[in-house]
Amino acid sequence: MKLLITGGAGFVGSRLARSLLKNGSLNGQKIDKLVIADQYAPPEFLRNDARVESRTAPLLEQCANLHEDRFDGVFHLASAVSGECEDDFDLGMRSNLDTTRALLDALRKAGNSPRFVFSSSIAVFGPDPAHPIPDIVTDETLPTPQTSYGTHKLMCEHLISDYTRKGYIDGRSARLMTVTVRPGRPNGAASSFFSGIIREPLAGEVAICPVLDSVSHPVSSPSLTVQGLTAVFEATREEFLGRSGINLPALNVTVKEMLDALEAVAGSKVRSLVKFEFNERIANIVSNWPKGAASMRAHRLGLQPAKNFESIIREYIEDSKPA
Amino acid sequence: MKLLITGGAGFVGSRLARSLLKNGSLNGQKIDKLVIADQYAPPEFLRNDARVESRTAPLLEQCANLHEDRFDGVFHLASAVSGECEDDFDLGMRSNLDTTRALLDALRKAGNSPRFVFSSSIAVFGPDPAHPIPDIVTDETLPTPQTSYGTHKLMCEHLISDYTRKGYIDGRSARLMTVTVRPGRPNGAASSFFSGIIREPLAGEVAICPVLDSVSHPVSSPSLTVQGLTAVFEATREEFLGRSGINLPALNVTVKEMLDALEAVAGSKVRSLVKFEFNERIANIVSNWPKGAASMRAHRLGLQPAKNFESIIREYIEDSKPA
Repeated sequence: MKLLITGGAGFVGSRLARSLLKNGSLNGQKIDKLVIADQYAPPEFLRNDARVESRTAPLLEQCANLHEDRFDGVFHLASAVSGECEDDFDLGMRSNLDTTRALLDALRKAGNSPRFVFSSSIAVFGPDPAHPIPDIVTDETLPTPQTSYGTHKLMCEHLISDYTRKGYIDGRSARLMTVTVRPGRPNGAASSFFSGIIREPLAGEVAICPVLDSVSHPVSSPSLTVQGLTAVFEATREEFLGRSGINLPALNVTVKEMLDALEAVAGSKVRSLVKFEFNERIANIVSNWPKGAASMRAHRLGLQPAKNFESIIREYIEDSKPA
Repeated sequence: MKLLITGGAGFVGSRLARSLLKNGSLNGQKIDKLVIADQYAPPEFLRNDARVESRTAPLLEQCANLHEDRFDGVFHLASAVSGECEDDFDLGMRSNLDTTRALLDALRKAGNSPRFVFSSSIAVFGPDPAHPIPDIVTDETLPTPQTSYGTHKLMCEHLISDYTRKGYIDGRSARLMTVTVRPGRPNGAASSFFSGIIREPLAGEVAICPVLDSVSHPVSSPSLTVQGLTAVFEATREEFLGRSGINLPALNVTVKEMLDALEAVAGSKVRSLVKFEFNERIANIVSNWPKGAASMRAHRLGLQPAKNFESIIREYIEDSKPA
């Protein structure tokens, strides 16, 4: 089978690609070719795999000829992140709405109704004055996004649902929790500190936490997120149930619990490298996110959240070791 | 003040224009100019009003220069209808999604954050396999639209909410119920028969009802719909409460109750002109619509539904008399 991963050079995308190539098959079919479409080049371990074709250019441009590929399956992960979309409205609309639309139209033009997994986000939820959200959002919760990023993700969920209803694709939207611990440097996402407060101390560096330690948030690990996206791809339509988006499993933790776990894994000196410097802009964005999530439809697919945050930290430490 | 009504030559739009011009003011401000943008020319009684400027061309084309107007208020009613969108996917996307986006961007470019009322629809609701809808949908019900038309309306609600959050417009989305009794000929809307089974018999003609008489549906009259749109425009942001869409008030009636009302108003001979010929395509679309709606947020704005269907028929008869 021939697969496409958009954003395949990124944090989740490259791990998904690695996992798929390691398995060698998806949904019982051998993976012959894996196209990675991203504005950045993928890591070397992906470029070196003979099954990988890397296409490095803005995805919107790539969509013009994408119908010629007739992919059997697509994971659409490419996205501008929340902070970028708040800072640059047009960039967000182009990267998240226009690009998804162009991708869907290319797949529609291809005419073979490929299976399609969309990485939506917990950010579709937010407190509208008329609709206070519950502490724990479920698949049934009314999404009233309070960021442009969340708005685009929700609009794309509905677009994908309609393209699926029309038979143009076989689409499924999975709402990712905040994936942590991300390696590398902080990015433009307002949620970036959820990784920074673990990653930097483990590297012996000071990390700034811009919110109070009572802040609660639904998180997941990279491997469980990859597992979730794969299971959503492999589900039959009956197993997936509806055409609406589902929440992937979440571990609901407070910043304090994250730091307790850091101390349990790496000691109190490491924990003490986390400094609290309240940042109103970040705190405002985060305050509009859910404190936790439940995932009934994901559980139906056999998916479970991380047992605890220590296991998520240990996954990061293991993942960071030289190959 | 300077107002724009898109789709202002249409059924609801022309009545809204007439009502606004008759009042002479909106939200306490004198109406100096009313631009009617529509692909069709507005009725003569509007063209003859010195305050009216009629612009007859596809709205998408008109949006290119619309920022120059710096409107104080906009009613965005232009839309392809449900049947058209099911038959022609691209037309629906262009008319309902692209055009709304272009309009919002023109208003954003104008820079004066005009008040903006969007005519959304009860069609945002539909039964997803994972989310059966209640018999009576409320402002809290999770919309999982099952038509392209409903999908576009919902996507635009979220777009308008985000443009409002960013301060580009002061937007409000009001979900119209099926407006009946429409004058003239049947149109492409799957709901067209909800007018036809009253209008044609009153004119002495046979009407075909394509669904069972047990079908229940939320309806409103033209005048109450105009009243609703006006109240939504005039509401303060605090009164409107959130940025999410609201249901306008609905009278929830069955086809049988509609025909009973027709008999009460016009006699049994008129009623006997309605023939039942089941149409699977129409019935399938209608079966995915709610059986009724409740409108808590609209009630907060002082809006109420029609008392009974007889009053809606009488409004039609009165409205049809020569001026």
